[in-house]
Amino acid sequence: MEKPFIFVTNDDGVGARGLNALIEAVRPLGRIMVVAPEDSQSGMSHAITMNSPLFLRKVREEEGLEVYACSGTPVDCVKMAFDSLMSEMPALVLSGINHGSNSAVSVIYSGTMGAAIEGSFYNVPSIGLSLLNHREDADFRAAVVYSLKVIEKVMNEEIELPMCLNVNIPDLPVGEIRGIRVCRQNKGYWREEFERRVDPRGRDYYWLKGIFQNQEENATDTDECALENGFVSIVPIQIDLTDYRQLDLMERWKW
Amino acid sequence: MEKPFIFVTNDDGVGARGLNALIEAVRPLGRIMVVAPEDSQSGMSHAITMNSPLFLRKVREEEGLEVYACSGTPVDCVKMAFDSLMSEMPALVLSGINHGSNSAVSVIYSGTMGAAIEGSFYNVPSIGLSLLNHREDADFRAAVVYSLKVIEKVMNEEIELPMCLNVNIPDLPVGEIRGIRVCRQNKGYWREEFERRVDPRGRDYYWLKGIFQNQEENATDTDECALENGFVSIVPIQIDLTDYRQLDLMERWKW
Repeated sequence: MEKPFIFVTNDDGVGARGLNALIEAVRPLGRIMVVAPEDSQSGMSHAITMNSPLFLRKVREEEGLEVYACSGTPVDCVKMAFDSLMSEMPALVLSGINHGSNSAVSVIYSGTMGAAIEGSFYNVPSIGLSLLNHREDADFRAAVVYSLKVIEKVMNEEIELPMCLNVNIPDLPVGEIRGIRVCRQNKGYWREEFERRVDPRGRDYYWLKGIFQNQEENATDTDECALENGFVSIVPIQIDLTDYRQLDLMERWKW
Repeated sequence: MEKPFIFVTNDDGVGARGLNALIEAVRPLGRIMVVAPEDSQSGMSHAITMNSPLFLRKVREEEGLEVYACSGTPVDCVKMAFDSLMSEMPALVLSGINHGSNSAVSVIYSGTMGAAIEGSFYNVPSIGLSLLNHREDADFRAAVVYSLKVIEKVMNEEIELPMCLNVNIPDLPVGEIRGIRVCRQNKGYWREEFERRVDPRGRDYYWLKGIFQNQEENATDTDECALENGFVSIVPIQIDLTDYRQLDLMERWKW
């Protein structure tokens, strides 16, 4: 039987260590197509490129592996792959392994999760994978072990589609990770402390410097709690943003 | 009593006709601060600028009105305003009026809605406003009438926070709009037909050209249905993306 076809992308760019660790890890499992951004697209969320065209560059081609770099966002990469490059539907979409956490509300800022969510729109099980270490030279060994555990589970369980998983992995040696928890998204938000500097021409400029505000510090069923306790967190994701509680309240309004 | 303080942003940029129509419409209601992107940031979703610094430029200052242009995304504009510019919390966040629809799944690609959602993280009622006409010279007269109806309702009703509303307005003369419907987000997705062209140096490039695929053509309680029938649609929005159905299914998995 032919090996399954697997699509891989990320938001840190085609040269990122986390992407290449994931590619090497999944090569034995199937035929791999990678379309990843040329450069870092961290924090690009579900952005698409509407005001400029996209360029595509073949980076690598070997038995069972094709790698492309795309000038656009992570979501552009997914769209380009599915709607323009693929000749068959993949069995799986993987996005990552991201350098840095995408737990809690970070899911909505994350380019990694933007791509994973977009993958799930093609009715393919999609997994976003993130390591809680944003350094370029982060050690992905434990993240690879746990990524493979989740990937193999999704490939072997009877699953219901659509499925999109937000997987975050603590920055610990593999022996110190305590297991895997399926959980819900922690409530919270980011506040910025803008760092103001002055450029050589005397112009002010500002760097975003966010601090996460946890609104549920005592909850035990959230991704933040799992991660703080040394577990890998998995939050299944959907994109009906309707606030049904508010919908009920507002239905009483008279126009 | 001092007039309420209202914050306004958009994703089409500080020069957009829709933004300026909204500013003029709400000036009689309060003291207005605007921080909007320098250029078009359509399709930028919840993106934030992590890899470059932000610049801010004061564009206009009059009695009761301050307008800034920011080099970043719509969400950057909101963060910059709240965390760096404001000396008091606003009574309301308005984003728009967008040139083009943000109904159904477009909510997750939309820079307009990214900004509105970010505003709601500050516990301020936030409203994204969009007209179903993406042309630069669109006629915003009916959109202004209905935007004011929604704004005044939110300012005068007893509301529960957090509140974020996704308001879409049909491209019709005011007399032909049939009313306002509070509804849920229609299920569907976009498929792209990439238009391939060749640049003067012989390189291929691609333009995104999406087509909306409605997965609920017969539903009567969705924003798509309201708009198709000539109503203004209001979808209340929240950002817990947890797929609770999938969470239940997955809790049975053995790791």
